[in-house]
Amino acid sequence: MPTLLLDKKICLANIERMALKARANQLSFRPHFKTHQSAEIGNWFRDFGVSAITVSSFRMAAYFAEAGWNDILVAFPFNPGDIVHLNRRSEKNQISILIDNRETLPLLKPITKKVCFYIDIDTGYGRTGVKSESVDQINEIIRDSQSNTNLEFSGFYCHAGHSYKAFSAMERDDIHLKAIADLEHLKNHFLEYSPKVLYGDTPNCSTQENFDGVDEITPGNFIFYDLYQHILGSCNLEDIAVAMACPMVGKYPDDQRLLIHGGAVHFSKESVHIDGRPRYGQLVNPTEWGWESPVRVQFINSLSQEHGILENCGEIFERIEIGDMLHFVPVHSCLTANLMRAYHTPEGEIITTLNS
Amino acid sequence: MPTLLLDKKICLANIERMALKARANQLSFRPHFKTHQSAEIGNWFRDFGVSAITVSSFRMAAYFAEAGWNDILVAFPFNPGDIVHLNRRSEKNQISILIDNRETLPLLKPITKKVCFYIDIDTGYGRTGVKSESVDQINEIIRDSQSNTNLEFSGFYCHAGHSYKAFSAMERDDIHLKAIADLEHLKNHFLEYSPKVLYGDTPNCSTQENFDGVDEITPGNFIFYDLYQHILGSCNLEDIAVAMACPMVGKYPDDQRLLIHGGAVHFSKESVHIDGRPRYGQLVNPTEWGWESPVRVQFINSLSQEHGILENCGEIFERIEIGDMLHFVPVHSCLTANLMRAYHTPEGEIITTLNS
Repeated sequence: MPTLLLDKKICLANIERMALKARANQLSFRPHFKTHQSAEIGNWFRDFGVSAITVSSFRMAAYFAEAGWNDILVAFPFNPGDIVHLNRRSEKNQISILIDNRETLPLLKPITKKVCFYIDIDTGYGRTGVKSESVDQINEIIRDSQSNTNLEFSGFYCHAGHSYKAFSAMERDDIHLKAIADLEHLKNHFLEYSPKVLYGDTPNCSTQENFDGVDEITPGNFIFYDLYQHILGSCNLEDIAVAMACPMVGKYPDDQRLLIHGGAVHFSKESVHIDGRPRYGQLVNPTEWGWESPVRVQFINSLSQEHGILENCGEIFERIEIGDMLHFVPVHSCLTANLMRAYHTPEGEIITTLNS
Repeated sequence: MPTLLLDKKICLANIERMALKARANQLSFRPHFKTHQSAEIGNWFRDFGVSAITVSSFRMAAYFAEAGWNDILVAFPFNPGDIVHLNRRSEKNQISILIDNRETLPLLKPITKKVCFYIDIDTGYGRTGVKSESVDQINEIIRDSQSNTNLEFSGFYCHAGHSYKAFSAMERDDIHLKAIADLEHLKNHFLEYSPKVLYGDTPNCSTQENFDGVDEITPGNFIFYDLYQHILGSCNLEDIAVAMACPMVGKYPDDQRLLIHGGAVHFSKESVHIDGRPRYGQLVNPTEWGWESPVRVQFINSLSQEHGILENCGEIFERIEIGDMLHFVPVHSCLTANLMRAYHTPEGEIITTLNS
């Protein structure tokens, strides 16, 4: 069976690096827990002074509240269908939500407890959020919210996720510098509300040094990183904290093809284009501290439901025997972890998640 | 929360159609249960005379054995690491396995019970299997297997999965006719062993009429179908038995963009290219019998972990309000069902799966 391996010492090093960066820049640190979805892994953050977290659903909020977290931001434009969950959760915990549509506000009338909200700002990603230049629209949201005494405007939230399409330092800098400039402009414009600025995807938080105007960073993926982040330049291969262990079960000499048991239901179908082709994972060798690439770089070339295929394996083909376990860093660790639902440590421990 | 809806009457119609086709062609019918992964849904097949099934892992085999199925083919090249599972399972059930490598045979020495095996044949797909023209290699596998009295050669298995890349009837016919001709040739060549021929992916089983030489068909996806199968021509939109219900939570007038709560952890990241762009699902309206496309065809244009984006929604944009539930047929129902782990029927019943 394919297994998801997790190296705790790499996770701790990744957390520490980000926590130190936050401290050096006088930023609060509100990590996104959708990556690991695990109460036990969540606890590792406490030693680094983390007391506030980000999640992407009320189900996740309930799970982590149960695990002792109190200050939780549900970083997804609020779904009015969740109002009963919001009310239930706000009874006991300090829940914040995101709003990016005026139309949502009347639907929030039934909230029963004080709820802080952030306005989701789009600085160019184009997924969610009010465009950063739409000051009037932001003004309307703040004004409309004031008729609901349980709603408190707390500031701006921005996920500049177009950083995931920026494969050069220059593109990345452009995205980041525009984002923080836009956010600082909004902060100054709405100064009377003392808005906080929450910002930060893993690529920007990992690579940037200037966080002027930002109050709090909210990256998630950095605890594990993955092949995609490595290709983007957010991390080194040895900073990746998770790897899939998959049995090799078929050898096909004609095209030096190897079959692994490890498919879309294990890795997810997320791919990254390298040399013009989609890749679904990279073969690595375990080392004392993480992983290293074999001399010949080898990717997973295709995935179906349970099958993974490695093509043109060269000398690797000869060395590997049927039944051997192979290790791969996944393309997108969040999706892989969500599918695998538990982590195995080198010490033989199993770490559970929300989905275990 | 995104929910996976299942329409039982469509499933039953899909099963019946395939069962009738099998009967009309004097084929046994051994459906692949990896699509639904549900004991309850599995039971629906019994009324159509089905008594043998296909699965893709020993975990699935154990689950369906528990649910009363006895004759189970594990249609994945045998992983020697599974020998303990094979032995345990063969104590009680009639388990068949696939072999496509001579190297696997010595590793099968420790089997303790009679196990039938099929040789996986590659007629051009290029994923697994011995190439159909490699008669010598097939001969070697059969000969080597004879030293193990617990191993019984039962015939050939072929998944002509390149049908999933054949978007025209002509390409599909070429793939299918070559496959069944190759298999019939092998059947005749190895006549002394009276080999059975197991064949059949959903596109070929849905669209083809000639199954000369085939003894048993093993399609899986047809019980649900999906957008991919519809684009391929395997089914009509109204034959699709599952749909995702997702709340709409964001409206962005500039590009008539809608945000749904429904992302890669719900749909999977499987896409199908339509008009040169990847699509992750199609918006449909529920009808009395399945679904219909709105006049303006609308796809999910991008997916991240929890977010789904619909772009350029035209008049649909105006009609839909925040909080409304939207319905989508998924691109790949097997992967979506695997992620969602339970089905909701229009009657309000919840149908569980192996992963519930």
